[in-house]
Amino acid sequence: MLENIKGNLIVSCQALPDEPLHSSFIMSKMALAALEGGAKGIRANSKEDIIEIKKEVDLPVVGIVKRDYEDSSVFITATYKEIDELMESDCEMIAMDATNRKRPNNIELAELVSYTREKNSTIQLMADIATLDEAVQAEQLGFDCISTTLHGYTEITKGKKLYHDDFKFLKDVLENVNIPIIAEGNVITPEMYKRCMELGAYSSVVGGAITRPKEITKRFVGMME
Amino acid sequence: MLENIKGNLIVSCQALPDEPLHSSFIMSKMALAALEGGAKGIRANSKEDIIEIKKEVDLPVVGIVKRDYEDSSVFITATYKEIDELMESDCEMIAMDATNRKRPNNIELAELVSYTREKNSTIQLMADIATLDEAVQAEQLGFDCISTTLHGYTEITKGKKLYHDDFKFLKDVLENVNIPIIAEGNVITPEMYKRCMELGAYSSVVGGAITRPKEITKRFVGMME
Repeated sequence: MLENIKGNLIVSCQALPDEPLHSSFIMSKMALAALEGGAKGIRANSKEDIIEIKKEVDLPVVGIVKRDYEDSSVFITATYKEIDELMESDCEMIAMDATNRKRPNNIELAELVSYTREKNSTIQLMADIATLDEAVQAEQLGFDCISTTLHGYTEITKGKKLYHDDFKFLKDVLENVNIPIIAEGNVITPEMYKRCMELGAYSSVVGGAITRPKEITKRFVGMME
Repeated sequence: MLENIKGNLIVSCQALPDEPLHSSFIMSKMALAALEGGAKGIRANSKEDIIEIKKEVDLPVVGIVKRDYEDSSVFITATYKEIDELMESDCEMIAMDATNRKRPNNIELAELVSYTREKNSTIQLMADIATLDEAVQAEQLGFDCISTTLHGYTEITKGKKLYHDDFKFLKDVLENVNIPIIAEGNVITPEMYKRCMELGAYSSVVGGAITRPKEITKRFVGMME
């Protein structure tokens, strides 16, 4: 998958149960729109959505399963169960929360990585991180690439946006790790996408700005409030 | 309908048969996303889509029927047939091509307006125009409002964009007609939407930038080509 996405756009096609577009059918058509628009990869949530998407488009998929657990704030591919579901989806890459937060049942991130590698040696692994320390750790754990997905979405990084200070956090990660870095999280405009790629991001994941019409509508309406 | 949309956003939810999201179901969910995002009106194409949308959201709808005719380049609600279909859809407003181009079967625009008024006196009429002359003519013909939809999309206006020269065309129309003017066509960013409203647009229709993920993807991908 990494070869396909180098220098290219990944479009995230997700709609959780409480969102207006929640439907594997709709997500598969969103993926088709992304393909026709020039995207080279898809990020998608849940085994069901990924299976539908793979019927519709011939693009590599980064799979995640978002699921809430009572004993942890980690919700992106948090346990063995989600890894197993993603293996069944035939996605080319699995992304998982790679933050330093406690996982459900105190599972260690390193254990999840080993588990995935043992079950399927060809599937690639993306580390969704929020801080520089987590990025460095992810490289040490043998992830194939790192995504800035969670920067701004953990207790420690709350309120931060990837684009703050001309993408300073992205620059810091790029300087300190050697595996491919994917810019993700608040890449909202074409100009921001361009800037991330110019700075050296290997690829960028854009989701809400393309596939969440409710969020886009809010951004328009918000201009006049 | 005009009261509802005053100072507010209308989201156009359209996907023609050759587009990836072509589906009345998907369009109804797009309309739901628009509603949840704060839109106060929907513009939609075809009786089928409008009926589905009206099941899903309680927002006024501007209806159109796009259909190609061999003897004319007019394709937005071009003849009596499309008017009849829209009457059956229960839309609150009908938008029709109000350019000076020859219509199919040489029907006159004035005849279409009279026909609609006679069949249903409560339905409102929007004139989709491309030039200032057409805007002035639309007001004389008794349209309830004018939309700049076709500016840039007719032979005479080819290559023009609504946002050119700080929305000069919109300003010209605003200065020369007294009925409400809707800014539509190439309102691509929240900033453009804001500018149109500040200049005095009664409302603005945003479509592609919210509900056409293929077009949005293209805009991102295009930055790196």
